[in-house]
Amino acid sequence: MTSPCQSLSAPGELVRELLARRRPGYSLEAPFYLSEALYQVDMEHIFGQHWIFVAVEPQIADAGDYITVDLGVDSILIVRDDEMQIRAFHNVCRHRGTRLCASRQGMVGNIVCPYHQWTYDLAGQLIHAKHMSDDFDLRSHGLKPVHVRSLSGLIFICLAEQAPQDFEQMAAEMTPYIAPHQLSQCKVAAQVDLVENCNWKLTMENNRECYHCVGNHPELTISLYEYGFGYKPDALNIGRLQRFEEILAANHKRWEGMGLPSAEIDTLERRVTGFRTQRLPIDRSGQSQTMSTEVASRKLLADFVEPALGGLSFWTQPNSWHHFMSDHTVNFTVLPISATKTLVRSTWCVHKDAIEGVDYSVENLTSVWNATNEQDRRLVEESQIGIASGAYQPGPYSPFTEGLVEKFCNWYVNRLRALVR
Amino acid sequence: MTSPCQSLSAPGELVRELLARRRPGYSLEAPFYLSEALYQVDMEHIFGQHWIFVAVEPQIADAGDYITVDLGVDSILIVRDDEMQIRAFHNVCRHRGTRLCASRQGMVGNIVCPYHQWTYDLAGQLIHAKHMSDDFDLRSHGLKPVHVRSLSGLIFICLAEQAPQDFEQMAAEMTPYIAPHQLSQCKVAAQVDLVENCNWKLTMENNRECYHCVGNHPELTISLYEYGFGYKPDALNIGRLQRFEEILAANHKRWEGMGLPSAEIDTLERRVTGFRTQRLPIDRSGQSQTMSTEVASRKLLADFVEPALGGLSFWTQPNSWHHFMSDHTVNFTVLPISATKTLVRSTWCVHKDAIEGVDYSVENLTSVWNATNEQDRRLVEESQIGIASGAYQPGPYSPFTEGLVEKFCNWYVNRLRALVR
Amino acid sequence: MTSPCQSLSAPGELVRELLARRRPGYSLEAPFYLSEALYQVDMEHIFGQHWIFVAVEPQIADAGDYITVDLGVDSILIVRDDEMQIRAFHNVCRHRGTRLCASRQGMVGNIVCPYHQWTYDLAGQLIHAKHMSDDFDLRSHGLKPVHVRSLSGLIFICLAEQAPQDFEQMAAEMTPYIAPHQLSQCKVAAQVDLVENCNWKLTMENNRECYHCVGNHPELTISLYEYGFGYKPDALNIGRLQRFEEILAANHKRWEGMGLPSAEIDTLERRVTGFRTQRLPIDRSGQSQTMSTEVASRKLLADFVEPALGGLSFWTQPNSWHHFMSDHTVNFTVLPISATKTLVRSTWCVHKDAIEGVDYSVENLTSVWNATNEQDRRLVEESQIGIASGAYQPGPYSPFTEGLVEKFCNWYVNRLRALVR
Repeated sequence: MTSPCQSLSAPGELVRELLARRRPGYSLEAPFYLSEALYQVDMEHIFGQHWIFVAVEPQIADAGDYITVDLGVDSILIVRDDEMQIRAFHNVCRHRGTRLCASRQGMVGNIVCPYHQWTYDLAGQLIHAKHMSDDFDLRSHGLKPVHVRSLSGLIFICLAEQAPQDFEQMAAEMTPYIAPHQLSQCKVAAQVDLVENCNWKLTMENNRECYHCVGNHPELTISLYEYGFGYKPDALNIGRLQRFEEILAANHKRWEGMGLPSAEIDTLERRVTGFRTQRLPIDRSGQSQTMSTEVASRKLLADFVEPALGGLSFWTQPNSWHHFMSDHTVNFTVLPISATKTLVRSTWCVHKDAIEGVDYSVENLTSVWNATNEQDRRLVEESQIGIASGAYQPGPYSPFTEGLVEKFCNWYVNRLRALVR
Repeated sequence: MTSPCQSLSAPGELVRELLARRRPGYSLEAPFYLSEALYQVDMEHIFGQHWIFVAVEPQIADAGDYITVDLGVDSILIVRDDEMQIRAFHNVCRHRGTRLCASRQGMVGNIVCPYHQWTYDLAGQLIHAKHMSDDFDLRSHGLKPVHVRSLSGLIFICLAEQAPQDFEQMAAEMTPYIAPHQLSQCKVAAQVDLVENCNWKLTMENNRECYHCVGNHPELTISLYEYGFGYKPDALNIGRLQRFEEILAANHKRWEGMGLPSAEIDTLERRVTGFRTQRLPIDRSGQSQTMSTEVASRKLLADFVEPALGGLSFWTQPNSWHHFMSDHTVNFTVLPISATKTLVRSTWCVHKDAIEGVDYSVENLTSVWNATNEQDRRLVEESQIGIASGAYQPGPYSPFTEGLVEKFCNWYVNRLRALVR
Repeated sequence: MTSPCQSLSAPGELVRELLARRRPGYSLEAPFYLSEALYQVDMEHIFGQHWIFVAVEPQIADAGDYITVDLGVDSILIVRDDEMQIRAFHNVCRHRGTRLCASRQGMVGNIVCPYHQWTYDLAGQLIHAKHMSDDFDLRSHGLKPVHVRSLSGLIFICLAEQAPQDFEQMAAEMTPYIAPHQLSQCKVAAQVDLVENCNWKLTMENNRECYHCVGNHPELTISLYEYGFGYKPDALNIGRLQRFEEILAANHKRWEGMGLPSAEIDTLERRVTGFRTQRLPIDRSGQSQTMSTEVASRKLLADFVEPALGGLSFWTQPNSWHHFMSDHTVNFTVLPISATKTLVRSTWCVHKDAIEGVDYSVENLTSVWNATNEQDRRLVEESQIGIASGAYQPGPYSPFTEGLVEKFCNWYVNRLRALVR
């Protein structure tokens, strides 16, 4: 939901004008990254109307486990109830509006407001409110529910009254890819929050290209094939590009033979719940996104015995990406804090029976992406500063390496065109 | 006064609409706690047009003593002049606008601007300004005065051109209650400033009910009777409620026999300068709001010999509350800093002849209210966070325990209805 | 350039009204110092349309040396190219807007964007951009140039499309004054940034009078003649004022005989590129603005042999002042950060052959102005606080000591009257 104050001003005119004149193949105009009015539009229409990845199931493994997630001004309470069902509510008491749970995570029997002890069960029903009159109706003062779905352990929420229905389609298509990694049999080994001083779209655009990788990510490029994310062909590299395509085809054939779907699916631009997936080979030992490219956890996920399964990547509009390997998963969620501040939350999971210090070390598990995230933070912050300058004007994308950035912008612009009155 | 910039925008439409649709018996809508425009309205019409409690006389005991108080963007200088009269001025030089006194308190002969040494006497007259032309008129460049009144040692100011006249009525009614405690014979033993990240109205509403006390204030409820602040009667507690009423009646009779008026007066909702008072018994030893309920200062106030005088409470609209006991007084003033930040200043006074370390310790004197304030800070901050969410909607007040919260809201809404053009 | 977001709102009405009712001889109304809209007007029309002093040539002595300067939201890159020419560009990549150089200063061969390594030569031409299509036109994606001029080593930039042409006139008139000090033969001995919590105009107004010096600047007034910056004549001081005029005349005659122009030029109010200059005697030993009034550097500037050359002062609209002495120069640039925050950058230069610890110490060189700046910071911050109060109203300037403040305000108001549509 959008802030009650901000929604009183109508930025519609400005937004429609900016959307109308968007130039395809070019970066967005500056107000998209700077304007408070557009931030409100983003929170209302993008984050308020779409499926947003926020957490993984291992964060709430047991009945009564809860987490809270901040989505702009909204605090969302996600809890596993006694029937092991996942539920999500606005984390706001129906009495005088107090936030119910202030912690990032915890365990509860009922949900009790700290102010006057109004008490809700895990289904969100108000079951006790002292000192209220006899005709007070408990049933009409339950917690406000939020749509929630799990896609093979990935928890998505939607704040809209009507959630986009094509989530089911994505779930049907993606389950065969993700389910084999058995996220429900995992535990969270590490979670790191990074605040970036930039608009959330710069964080996302950065994620959607590897044009910047060679010059900035020495740790990540150990395991990444240079040709996996777009390249301008020329006389010098044509042979290497072909060699990469052969490696890709051979691996896909091998993995699909093991029951691991690997072919690309791309609905990024054409669906409301846009996504893309592909299983990509890992360079050198072929196993994992680590400094050595070998598995970070000796206890493999699920019933895997082969460590060289490459990395299954899954990207969703508007705010997440994921890598599933034979030994661990790493999930990223992007949560806007303000027009110019964004949270990137990274979560690493390993098999729940893996023992820290024996099967894996957190340092080895997290070092590549911690380094990469920090490098990306610097880049997007420098972009934010430059874009805030009056001298910035949208520049051209590379047709070879920035196609997915363009798809992100197209999806974003088209969604707003459809939703902004 | 309101900020010169902010007053250029006209929030009247929004405010009138919000005032018109206020639902009695329910908490206020979110913009009242969040909106910058409504904060400006509050500062202009509530804090700018009413009597505001800001200090106690012992803070400026001697001629030349001054304090400064920040009321939104305004800094007010309150000084005791050579005839021992209390005067208040805008703390702003008439030359180029420099703040005259930057300290919270001090002592001066004249008021000298630090910038170019323009010099004003304690009556606010400009008496010296170097380098000005011969026809420069000193008399038309005196400090801008602010209305100031002392009610038995409680200093109230009013920034309006015409201050509400019913202050006299309040003074006439309250003087018999407060005067016996002889605040002028006191000294300040401690003063603590607490900044709460919430709108000032949440701080006030919290003060106007004890529904939250049992669940949150283990220290305060040692000395408070559970039934003194509203309770829903039922079969189980009806006997205890009657017992409390008997204790109250017996104490009132005893105290009034000692010349200490004790009966409730409540003008909270119906007067411009709304207030409420009542002398309430203290639980256990009956003496003081301390952890032991015994007096914090062995040297009693005034000529008191009986320590068990209960607590005379005095609540004023829009921003203060006070407790006067046999041994000490504690006064609270609420001063908005921004739409979402509020200062709570607590001041403890004891007899001026009481000796620290012998008759009292600051730790023992202040521990109950320091703990309580900190607990309240957490509660109102959690309310601010929840109300900022798009999911918040006004909830119902308990008719048994939140009647004074409703009176605060009614007073506030009615005052704005009367004042906002 | 103004911020792309802010320029979408039109503050023209308010500004024109405020400009129309400006009362001569009085300080400006509060919104000029507080309003975000007026800050945007200042950045667009004052800092965006005039010549702004930002640096001295010794900061970029060699080919490839660069500095970056922040002017509001704009970052400007100033570089000395291989032909030793000074060039200025917007520090923004033409690809996706990333800031090119994040450091305050450095040395480069080419200018390489950290994000995707787009590479520009020192003339601003894009010479390399990987992965772009074959028809991508490098020549139309060069850095956006900014006007830059050096006046005997003082670097001015202008962000406007058409820079004011009277810079040439100022250069012609000032070169004979400044050139003898040979700034190009100097090195930067110290540079100090001070952030003042006030509007930039308060910083400038403070600089344009010494009415406040006696009461606030014990260090600076050691070397300043009390009568050099305006005084109200009276029976007691008339003799001393005449004596000062005689000293001034005698010194001017002596200095002009040495080829050092000394007479006052004042175009502060009447020119777009307004300035004022005067060579003023220094009190006591007559040599330098130090605590002892003796030279801070034993190695004199240029080919000077006489240390008692007084101080050549140079003040420019809207944002700088400078003092050139026999042994060192000190330059001040005022750079707004926000409506209520301002950077004052002070730069001290000595002869490039002077050896630290032998010929000069940084402590002795900088102590007078570091102390003075800190005192001024306190004064302008107290003014900002007072002006933010609703009680502030413009006050009268002293006709004897605040004439140059009035000229600053008149220039400012007249420039806005000419430029704001």
